[in-house]
Amino acid sequence: MRKIFIQLILSIAAMMLLSLSLHAQKGWYTDKTESMPVLNADGTVTFRLKAPGAKQITVGGDFLPEGMKYATLSRKDSTTWEYTSTFTLKPEIYAYTYRIDGQKALDPLNLFVWRNISDLYNIFIVDGERTQNYQIKDVPHGTVSAVWYQSPSLNMQRRMMVYTPAGYEKGRKKYPVLYLLHGMGGDETAWLDFGRAAQILDNLIAQGKALPMIVVMPNGNPAEEAAPLENSTGYNMPLFYLPKTMDGEFEESFKDITSFVEKNYRTIKKRSARAIAGLSMGGFHSLYISANYPKLFGAVGLFSPAVTVQEEYKDNIIYRDIDLKWKAQMEKNPPLYWIGVGKADPLYNDVAALRTKFDLCKYPYTYFESEGGHVWTEWRIYLEEFTQLIFK
Amino acid sequence: MRKIFIQLILSIAAMMLLSLSLHAQKGWYTDKTESMPVLNADGTVTFRLKAPGAKQITVGGDFLPEGMKYATLSRKDSTTWEYTSTFTLKPEIYAYTYRIDGQKALDPLNLFVWRNISDLYNIFIVDGERTQNYQIKDVPHGTVSAVWYQSPSLNMQRRMMVYTPAGYEKGRKKYPVLYLLHGMGGDETAWLDFGRAAQILDNLIAQGKALPMIVVMPNGNPAEEAAPLENSTGYNMPLFYLPKTMDGEFEESFKDITSFVEKNYRTIKKRSARAIAGLSMGGFHSLYISANYPKLFGAVGLFSPAVTVQEEYKDNIIYRDIDLKWKAQMEKNPPLYWIGVGKADPLYNDVAALRTKFDLCKYPYTYFESEGGHVWTEWRIYLEEFTQLIFK
Repeated sequence: MRKIFIQLILSIAAMMLLSLSLHAQKGWYTDKTESMPVLNADGTVTFRLKAPGAKQITVGGDFLPEGMKYATLSRKDSTTWEYTSTFTLKPEIYAYTYRIDGQKALDPLNLFVWRNISDLYNIFIVDGERTQNYQIKDVPHGTVSAVWYQSPSLNMQRRMMVYTPAGYEKGRKKYPVLYLLHGMGGDETAWLDFGRAAQILDNLIAQGKALPMIVVMPNGNPAEEAAPLENSTGYNMPLFYLPKTMDGEFEESFKDITSFVEKNYRTIKKRSARAIAGLSMGGFHSLYISANYPKLFGAVGLFSPAVTVQEEYKDNIIYRDIDLKWKAQMEKNPPLYWIGVGKADPLYNDVAALRTKFDLCKYPYTYFESEGGHVWTEWRIYLEEFTQLIFK
Repeated sequence: MRKIFIQLILSIAAMMLLSLSLHAQKGWYTDKTESMPVLNADGTVTFRLKAPGAKQITVGGDFLPEGMKYATLSRKDSTTWEYTSTFTLKPEIYAYTYRIDGQKALDPLNLFVWRNISDLYNIFIVDGERTQNYQIKDVPHGTVSAVWYQSPSLNMQRRMMVYTPAGYEKGRKKYPVLYLLHGMGGDETAWLDFGRAAQILDNLIAQGKALPMIVVMPNGNPAEEAAPLENSTGYNMPLFYLPKTMDGEFEESFKDITSFVEKNYRTIKKRSARAIAGLSMGGFHSLYISANYPKLFGAVGLFSPAVTVQEEYKDNIIYRDIDLKWKAQMEKNPPLYWIGVGKADPLYNDVAALRTKFDLCKYPYTYFESEGGHVWTEWRIYLEEFTQLIFK
């Protein structure tokens, strides 16, 4: 035991020295920065990596300006490679990975790894006004639960993530519910990591900008019970394109989710206290679920939504006669209908076509246009905007 | 949109081909096995990695036999390195990482990464009887929640993970509570990843071997609010040795945890319906908490426990007069006292000394000795054993 403690004390001392000498200038981390991106005082970022045998090292990620696919590191000495950006970084959460001689490599000294679809990314943060609501602040925190429910429509147990606001456990109060859907290849965890949904809700609720609400994040892929690693098929690698994601099956099975939530949580069982929103494929799901069940949702959020139905599914009960369904949904007592898209989004034109249709029919909706593309930076902003409008 | 679908269909086709041609022989994963460990029919394992520029590649991990620190991969062709074990692997969950020219590297094609203390490891599984209860089976699943509570003793909000058994949300039933503590450098998430606590409980409860129970997994480091990435100090790298872990402060603050749990969950408020257990430092915490508050716990589990108090803390109110405290705890109405340790554990002799003391005083306890060391393979087994004995 004494030996273990001596070893421990030596390792603390070593770590403290390391931490002092390599202390990051700013940002959310303090030590082991040798290989993590270092945020420089002038707003640029430096990537450093030890790889003595490498012939070429590049770094890619969403910190790069539009159109720049990767940056190339240069040899600094016999072991270390380095790249300092020629551009400055705005406050944001960024993802990156290295390629060493063409082979993908995570940063060996950065523990902060998030999965997006079927790839892992290291994370770094440039702190600032934009990222305040993405951080864990000293405010009351909601609870985030991984919950399994029986889906009779899909004949399987399925997992959802549920955010209940601070105070839920203690009280008897009933809450409105936002159903928040992920994009293609994502799963029930997507809105919690890259999406920062729990932090955004905690902070907006504490600031009085959003009302306390339950947020239900189901898995929108009818072919899987739960996220990779969390389902009974075992340790399968996730595929970007799972079968049965946009063929109407998820939309039809959605009643299993609302029914479970209303039975198991203290919800306000009224149209005005139910909202549905989603990004990309989740926007597509939100569009068609809300149009098919117009009495269910008092608010609808489409974040960079996919709109177009694949030819082979056009006659599906969920997708056919959409114009008539919209008429029923939007002409009398329309929901708060919110559409957000980025100027650089490849789906921009599809969304513009949807808006033209709505405009012609004089359907009321709120439109929010941002600068970016089909990425999490935009979807976090849309969630902040949308959650401040609903249930009021 | 059409373009996106064509791209998708091409990538599905490519993935399906890859999946067919590289289909793993057995185990929990089906595709992208090119670089993941391949389980061979004869029970050996093959590691393959692409790294054209490397001079030396080794692989380390707990799949290696006792005493073997790493295995060296050989060049197979101009890009690929390979190692096939000369030993066979028993069914178990294994962790591994590569070193490329001395630099730690995660497997670029294995998405399954768990953090243990301040390092990330890739995971692979050899399926078999031993691992059945570690898997997600088609049985009713409990809910796993990340919950924040106010700790007046430590003057901060802190996070705990709470497992509530299947059916908890719907019913009015009250449940017994197991408080389950992590080891040094761990945090509230440790028992859920490497520990497989939720899967073990789901499966044992479904088999009728353990009673439905709430499992509370607090953070045992008084210096931090929550696991790295999940606390308000931001994206700090975790240190193995945090301050204030074994100085009595956590033990004294433990009442904040029991008080929160009994206020916010439907618990049976009786000594016989409360158990405490932990591994290593968590065993140390369980030992001293249960001895200081002998009326609180009807069952105590010490898994490879640290026992010895550091010299400077010997006079602390929590640690002093331990012999008298044990006397009070063990002589009249003793709890179910369970001690587990592995033959290869560096703490084996400390545990033997504790047993000698208990034997001399004729204190009743159950002793469980396994073959392994101070590692998760043993702690998962101890959890399976202990949870089948308590609350009965």
